[in-house]
Amino acid sequence: MRILVLGGDGYLGWPTAMYLSANGHQVGVVDNMVRRAYDHELGSGSLVPIETLATRLAVWHDRGGDSISSYYGDLVDSDFLYATIRDFEPDTIVHFAEQRAAPYSMIDRKHAVYTQMNNVVGTLNLMYAVGEIDRDIHIVKLGTMGEYGTPNIDIEEGWLDITHKGRSDRVLFPKRPGSFYHLSKVHDSHNLEFGCRIWGLRVTDLNQGVVYGQETEQTAADPRLVTRFDYDAVFGTVLNRFAIQAVLGLPLTVYGGGSQTRAIIDIRDTVECVRLACQSPAAAGEFRVFNQTTETMSLTEMAKTVTNSFPGASSIVHLENPRVEIEDHHFSVVHTALEDLGLSPHLLSDTLLTSMFDIIDQHRDRVDRNALTPGVNWRASANAASHVAQGSEYVGG
Amino acid sequence: MRILVLGGDGYLGWPTAMYLSANGHQVGVVDNMVRRAYDHELGSGSLVPIETLATRLAVWHDRGGDSISSYYGDLVDSDFLYATIRDFEPDTIVHFAEQRAAPYSMIDRKHAVYTQMNNVVGTLNLMYAVGEIDRDIHIVKLGTMGEYGTPNIDIEEGWLDITHKGRSDRVLFPKRPGSFYHLSKVHDSHNLEFGCRIWGLRVTDLNQGVVYGQETEQTAADPRLVTRFDYDAVFGTVLNRFAIQAVLGLPLTVYGGGSQTRAIIDIRDTVECVRLACQSPAAAGEFRVFNQTTETMSLTEMAKTVTNSFPGASSIVHLENPRVEIEDHHFSVVHTALEDLGLSPHLLSDTLLTSMFDIIDQHRDRVDRNALTPGVNWRASANAASHVAQGSEYVGG
Repeated sequence: MRILVLGGDGYLGWPTAMYLSANGHQVGVVDNMVRRAYDHELGSGSLVPIETLATRLAVWHDRGGDSISSYYGDLVDSDFLYATIRDFEPDTIVHFAEQRAAPYSMIDRKHAVYTQMNNVVGTLNLMYAVGEIDRDIHIVKLGTMGEYGTPNIDIEEGWLDITHKGRSDRVLFPKRPGSFYHLSKVHDSHNLEFGCRIWGLRVTDLNQGVVYGQETEQTAADPRLVTRFDYDAVFGTVLNRFAIQAVLGLPLTVYGGGSQTRAIIDIRDTVECVRLACQSPAAAGEFRVFNQTTETMSLTEMAKTVTNSFPGASSIVHLENPRVEIEDHHFSVVHTALEDLGLSPHLLSDTLLTSMFDIIDQHRDRVDRNALTPGVNWRASANAASHVAQGSEYVGG
Repeated sequence: MRILVLGGDGYLGWPTAMYLSANGHQVGVVDNMVRRAYDHELGSGSLVPIETLATRLAVWHDRGGDSISSYYGDLVDSDFLYATIRDFEPDTIVHFAEQRAAPYSMIDRKHAVYTQMNNVVGTLNLMYAVGEIDRDIHIVKLGTMGEYGTPNIDIEEGWLDITHKGRSDRVLFPKRPGSFYHLSKVHDSHNLEFGCRIWGLRVTDLNQGVVYGQETEQTAADPRLVTRFDYDAVFGTVLNRFAIQAVLGLPLTVYGGGSQTRAIIDIRDTVECVRLACQSPAAAGEFRVFNQTTETMSLTEMAKTVTNSFPGASSIVHLENPRVEIEDHHFSVVHTALEDLGLSPHLLSDTLLTSMFDIIDQHRDRVDRNALTPGVNWRASANAASHVAQGSEYVGG
């Protein structure tokens, strides 16, 4: 199968591209390198040094992998996107190419507008390109569990059967997202569902939990193939940050009471879920939604799991929550569709954390401690640029 | 009360501005005149000649109305929007300033992207401006009944109480919009509801039915105060088009089987609904939704009402439906909130239609018959520009 990975230079895009290639698919990657530019803007960076995309691709090929094509450009540039799809002729397009940090979208008006425009226009352009070039191309789109918010009912996989005043319908699951970033993904989902109805597009929307871990079989094979390890408060995910705080002997900073519960997933399961979705495409006209998560855990439980696994870890402290969210809430997530396709989940374990601790320890001198402190506050509508440079929190998926 | 009307030069914005002024409010209007530019693009125009905004404002004042301030600019230009709000110091902002034609948004990729960007960014900028300048300003936002689609359950006013697997929640009513335009309004609603949660904004979302009629007490007072009368297949609304076809002796063109049912409203009720919403603001943090419609009617019923009212009207013909929509569907709309605030609806009647027939007859020589024919097809992902100039259909709200 020919698979084009949009955002193929990113934290998850790059491991996914290699994983699909290792599993016998012909892979192309598209990226505009803006994730690397955000690091310059924020004064942040990956804990683990990463190579350029050109080097990554050369090493992958030199080590015996199938050649991976690469296209440099931006989805907002429709000419580029159409030309790329015409050139690569994919069967499937995996779409990771969105601004994906909730705190980044909440910095100020410009970052909110940028996030929604970048994500919504990129996806609209993709829909039109597929609509005009080949409507059989299967679009596998990365969404997030954060789109749902914390409803008081169980979270089904994208659709909900409801009965109201004696009549029934199947509707898109009502969402209550918690940031302008999460909202952008809700907008995408509505646009894509419409594309399935009017043009018969084939779409799989993967509502992914918060990803933890940094190694897959492919990234671990050569230090030049590693992927990013973000730990800063804007782009870092919460478990990765807790692991770093433990290794450095810093207090594990839980925002708010800590009973807020997240859907989470191991990076090795992420790449497998994408493969499973690609290999069993949605039907023509089908808007299919999978909850791409394997377990749920409260922030406090995550912190305790980390301190229990790392001998000598410092204590857990609670900071004022920079987000506006309900802390004590029902959170029950249905996630059977990917397991029905064959996923065997890796659940959070000491083994995984131990391998992360080793990676962190090797690179401990690269940690910027200021970047661990949250600087973006949901209640403010504008944040001074200086706050951003100090870092802020990202726990969403 | 100081009320700023965004889009105050448009079909509904202008009558609303005068109506609010006549009811004792201090009114300002904001417009970038893009609605007049669409006419140049499409080769269309109002059946009834309209004056420039400058002339309208001068006539309004000369005839004894309170002076209405005017600001020329675009909501996408945040500097302009912030400066305007700081200068006018409104208590309430009525937001009509969006691209509002479903067929226009479906012309091609560029028009879809333009519609979503214009509408979503304009509203995001407005939310941030209110969030940063004065969070007590009440935002009264025009939505559309078309956001809901045609669910098989009754359409409640924006929110829905649901029970699922024994647990209950109150959620945003799940929507299934029928065009990229309608989708843009769904995106706006999600963004605004989030603004209420994080910043305590006061928002009223008016999900308006398809508006018919062209006269209010204020527009009828002087020919220089009239508002637009759109009849072309892109911007014209369905009842106005049927009335023109009747007067000209043309067949009334129903798209598809005609059992598709729309929520409708008289233009005189539109301006009163906006006044009622302004005068009873939403609470701080409240995202309040009203279904701004007074009755529902199928396309065939609308056509029959017109032919029954106009002696000598031609017959009804059915054309292939350019839209993708379900034709036979449940459609039951709750619309009690505005009536509870005091609305006394004008229902569709012979009296109203007779006054419209007179206006049309006066201007019958200005009708471009080609503009009545639909040119935008939902199933195509791109339409040649030449089709657009020939016109296309707009029946949505």
